[in-house]
Amino acid sequence: MTSSNASTAYLTVACKDQPGIVAAVSGFLFSKNANIIHSDQHSSDPVGGRFFLRMEFHMKDLESKFEDFKKEFSETVAVKFEMIWTLTPAWIKKKTAILVSKFDHALMDLLWRAKRGELFTDITMVISNHPDLREAVESFGVTFHHIPVEKDKKEESEHKILELLNGKVDLIILARYMQILTSKLIESYPYKIINIHHSFLPAFVGADPYRRAGERGVKLIGATAHYVTEELDQGPIIEQDVIRVSHRHDIEELKILGRDIERQVLSRAVKWHLSQRVLVDGNKTVVFV
Amino acid sequence: MTSSNASTAYLTVACKDQPGIVAAVSGFLFSKNANIIHSDQHSSDPVGGRFFLRMEFHMKDLESKFEDFKKEFSETVAVKFEMIWTLTPAWIKKKTAILVSKFDHALMDLLWRAKRGELFTDITMVISNHPDLREAVESFGVTFHHIPVEKDKKEESEHKILELLNGKVDLIILARYMQILTSKLIESYPYKIINIHHSFLPAFVGADPYRRAGERGVKLIGATAHYVTEELDQGPIIEQDVIRVSHRHDIEELKILGRDIERQVLSRAVKWHLSQRVLVDGNKTVVFV
Amino acid sequence: MTSSNASTAYLTVACKDQPGIVAAVSGFLFSKNANIIHSDQHSSDPVGGRFFLRMEFHMKDLESKFEDFKKEFSETVAVKFEMIWTLTPAWIKKKTAILVSKFDHALMDLLWRAKRGELFTDITMVISNHPDLREAVESFGVTFHHIPVEKDKKEESEHKILELLNGKVDLIILARYMQILTSKLIESYPYKIINIHHSFLPAFVGADPYRRAGERGVKLIGATAHYVTEELDQGPIIEQDVIRVSHRHDIEELKILGRDIERQVLSRAVKWHLSQRVLVDGNKTVVFV
Amino acid sequence: MTSSNASTAYLTVACKDQPGIVAAVSGFLFSKNANIIHSDQHSSDPVGGRFFLRMEFHMKDLESKFEDFKKEFSETVAVKFEMIWTLTPAWIKKKTAILVSKFDHALMDLLWRAKRGELFTDITMVISNHPDLREAVESFGVTFHHIPVEKDKKEESEHKILELLNGKVDLIILARYMQILTSKLIESYPYKIINIHHSFLPAFVGADPYRRAGERGVKLIGATAHYVTEELDQGPIIEQDVIRVSHRHDIEELKILGRDIERQVLSRAVKWHLSQRVLVDGNKTVVFV
Repeated sequence: MTSSNASTAYLTVACKDQPGIVAAVSGFLFSKNANIIHSDQHSSDPVGGRFFLRMEFHMKDLESKFEDFKKEFSETVAVKFEMIWTLTPAWIKKKTAILVSKFDHALMDLLWRAKRGELFTDITMVISNHPDLREAVESFGVTFHHIPVEKDKKEESEHKILELLNGKVDLIILARYMQILTSKLIESYPYKIINIHHSFLPAFVGADPYRRAGERGVKLIGATAHYVTEELDQGPIIEQDVIRVSHRHDIEELKILGRDIERQVLSRAVKWHLSQRVLVDGNKTVVFV
Repeated sequence: MTSSNASTAYLTVACKDQPGIVAAVSGFLFSKNANIIHSDQHSSDPVGGRFFLRMEFHMKDLESKFEDFKKEFSETVAVKFEMIWTLTPAWIKKKTAILVSKFDHALMDLLWRAKRGELFTDITMVISNHPDLREAVESFGVTFHHIPVEKDKKEESEHKILELLNGKVDLIILARYMQILTSKLIESYPYKIINIHHSFLPAFVGADPYRRAGERGVKLIGATAHYVTEELDQGPIIEQDVIRVSHRHDIEELKILGRDIERQVLSRAVKWHLSQRVLVDGNKTVVFV
Repeated sequence: MTSSNASTAYLTVACKDQPGIVAAVSGFLFSKNANIIHSDQHSSDPVGGRFFLRMEFHMKDLESKFEDFKKEFSETVAVKFEMIWTLTPAWIKKKTAILVSKFDHALMDLLWRAKRGELFTDITMVISNHPDLREAVESFGVTFHHIPVEKDKKEESEHKILELLNGKVDLIILARYMQILTSKLIESYPYKIINIHHSFLPAFVGADPYRRAGERGVKLIGATAHYVTEELDQGPIIEQDVIRVSHRHDIEELKILGRDIERQVLSRAVKWHLSQRVLVDGNKTVVFV
Repeated sequence: MTSSNASTAYLTVACKDQPGIVAAVSGFLFSKNANIIHSDQHSSDPVGGRFFLRMEFHMKDLESKFEDFKKEFSETVAVKFEMIWTLTPAWIKKKTAILVSKFDHALMDLLWRAKRGELFTDITMVISNHPDLREAVESFGVTFHHIPVEKDKKEESEHKILELLNGKVDLIILARYMQILTSKLIESYPYKIINIHHSFLPAFVGADPYRRAGERGVKLIGATAHYVTEELDQGPIIEQDVIRVSHRHDIEELKILGRDIERQVLSRAVKWHLSQRVLVDGNKTVVFV
């Protein structure tokens, strides 16, 4: 924590679009002697749309005044515009849990970037339905939990996972976790679970997508990072990217390239989430980068 | 036509993979004092796969010896390996017809590139089910045919189109032609009809795709050029590309960007087709670029 | 001009960073019942940096109140923060002149996009030191001036150009104009002249860059659009992009690909400039897209 | 080593272009019952150019017949066309040494990809002029040598490095090794030393390039992997790539993105080198991918 970070926070706002929002927010910040460092805003529609705002600001001694600041903003600004809002201190690392199965490419990339400070987060635990990645995870000094998932005891397993997570994490990353989450887990962490999956043009829904994409001769393969919602793989998209392929790539090579693009896309999505850059607008996202 | 082109040809070969194919083809060319300028080959599978070859070669006085060359290659090499093959003179411009409706972005790009020699082809006619683009087309000195398509007289219209095309074109480009072709037309030009359409991850099949992609908050929009086959939009993909978008792009801007990427992808696909770089392998393509 | 555009304007601001700027600007807009549609801001440095702001706002009857609005903003807000600022009506098309030599790819792309409304501008004239492109330009209904540039009469020619431009254009685009401008012309249009040139990694300064890039075997070729300043090709960069190439591309093909990327980069830079998205910060730009 | 790999080899050929080369090579392979899996060729110029060929072929019991095969090819084919050629068994992992200073991003990526089989190589040692990365390297089971380089004892240090390398490595990777190699080391490993460095449009030669690129407001930052030759950073380029940046990225973020693109570009270059896909043509490369 630098002294600079201890006086920086991220404010996000979503509300019905109307005149005066920016004036109210920036007026409030000015009255507190806060200096806006970055600000982004978006209206989903010039007429009758939703308004989205993210501000990053500096304020002397913010840490000690944080709760008062929050209370006053709520009462004097947020209530008036019926805002859905967050205020996040930049000096506190969010706590993250990673769920994973056997593929380690996305997991390793996250552990590595967290270790070198590229992702400002504490990865407090890795949970897997397989024991294989224990050593790799523990070599980073991160706790590894093996929670097997048996077909008819799925709820039992997830109960254990929820107990491990309970109150301890701000973000859950599915880094190729090959189990479908129950509604209970999803509802406990609304827009706080990020999943990564492969993407193609067109999509190949179902089993063995790389083989089918290869058979169809696609010229691009990609990956999509999205928030997890009830509807499988249909949550708000945070980030996507692709890489060119050709007839020269066999299925094995497509998979290797797919892993590369998956870990890049996931790490970008996580990075943006951690600094409150991703706001949800219905089933899509506003990403202020 | 440069004198150099008059002695250059493209040879493409597809057959069952087996030892000796390259030796036979290159031995034949050597026996004719032909010099291979470019050569690409591909085996779809190391064991039991299909073999694909494209060679570009120089041979003195090839134009005058063309028919003899072709006959001899057929009898001494092609028959032996049961090859599906083409031999295309580089000095003859292929004849192209463009079918279009009202959108002109892809059409204009093709006319323009043909005019400046980037596409080595004679665009002999443009056919449209609307009269709107006549002036734009004729300003390039290209013949414009207006063939309206009425709902219950679709076959009649296509009959007229077939008559116009009959024996006069080597390639048909659907540059945003908003009519579904009948089997008869498709079968008359196997792998000689190229279509362009928008692509997203995931795909949005059906009406109003840009609106739906916008609503889903996709971060990439793209385009796919493919050969037209019986199954709608499911023919072998020749080329794909994407462009990044964000929440800042409204539907109208998505469409503008979509048009840009469509015309780039289509013109690349057409260019590769014209120099015989695209070989069909079942429902995919081998593109030698 | 839609009625919507007649009440929309772009406000840009640059000044020393300090608390209260956004509060003052947004407070002023709110007091005028204006609704902010888009807003972007940037501080070049959290401490002691420059502040940049672009707002797009709606205000009823703005057209009729425009001069009053401007005056009041100047006196009550801009003066206080020593702002460098612009207020641009969205309903007035800026007037553009294009200077060109013989290459027509960038020129045609601009004429075409302006015609179809993708670029919101009136291209009022095209000036060339060669007569070749007259017909192409006039077919768009645009005036073409042929101003030859002789080696020892360069100033004379530029004098004629300045007379043609004088008071009639808001933007000058050098669409492959192969003459170096004099200081007089540059100073008359500060940050209002956009140039496009090829770019490579590394750069190949001087003659025949494509040949030299080809000889060096670069794997990417690109283009840079920048504002013209006194120092040749060293003005603030607005946009850059690249395209992959390989040993398979000969010099001629590199040039074709180079033209494609040049026209894309230039048209993006022009589009952003026209909607006041480009702010200059010393020798770099802040581009709000 | 799979049984399949034990019968696969890569043949590369460079010689003066002339008719009959492919016929001779493929005829020889056919006479040995070898089946060509992949083949790529390139002529640097249709007239008077250099010819480049890479073939990947299968041949039963190749391992046991390897030396005989090599001798016979040399005597019956290579000599005749004055070929510069290589024949590389696909079943033997090349031995690689990595030289590194303090930055670990490229090093870690290579170690990791080698471990998971994405790079088919044995990394036999890591040599650094700093002790910092010992633990990270040894955790992969790879030997770490700390060879300090003092200003006036540079030759002494390199003498030690050469002794460590001597006869033990096929490839040397400079994964951000911040020392200039002496001619002696470079000459000992011609086109067997790969370096990675940052790249911009335009280039910023000298100290502190990211700061200067940031000050110039570049919109793309990139990386170049190349073979090391006598002239510093001027050797044949193997691979390049870029990533978009904007005014929103500060110098620190530019460096993080730069590291990402550096490791991707380096790992691609190394992968291609390992499977003999990179042929040198004067000061450029022919890369058959």
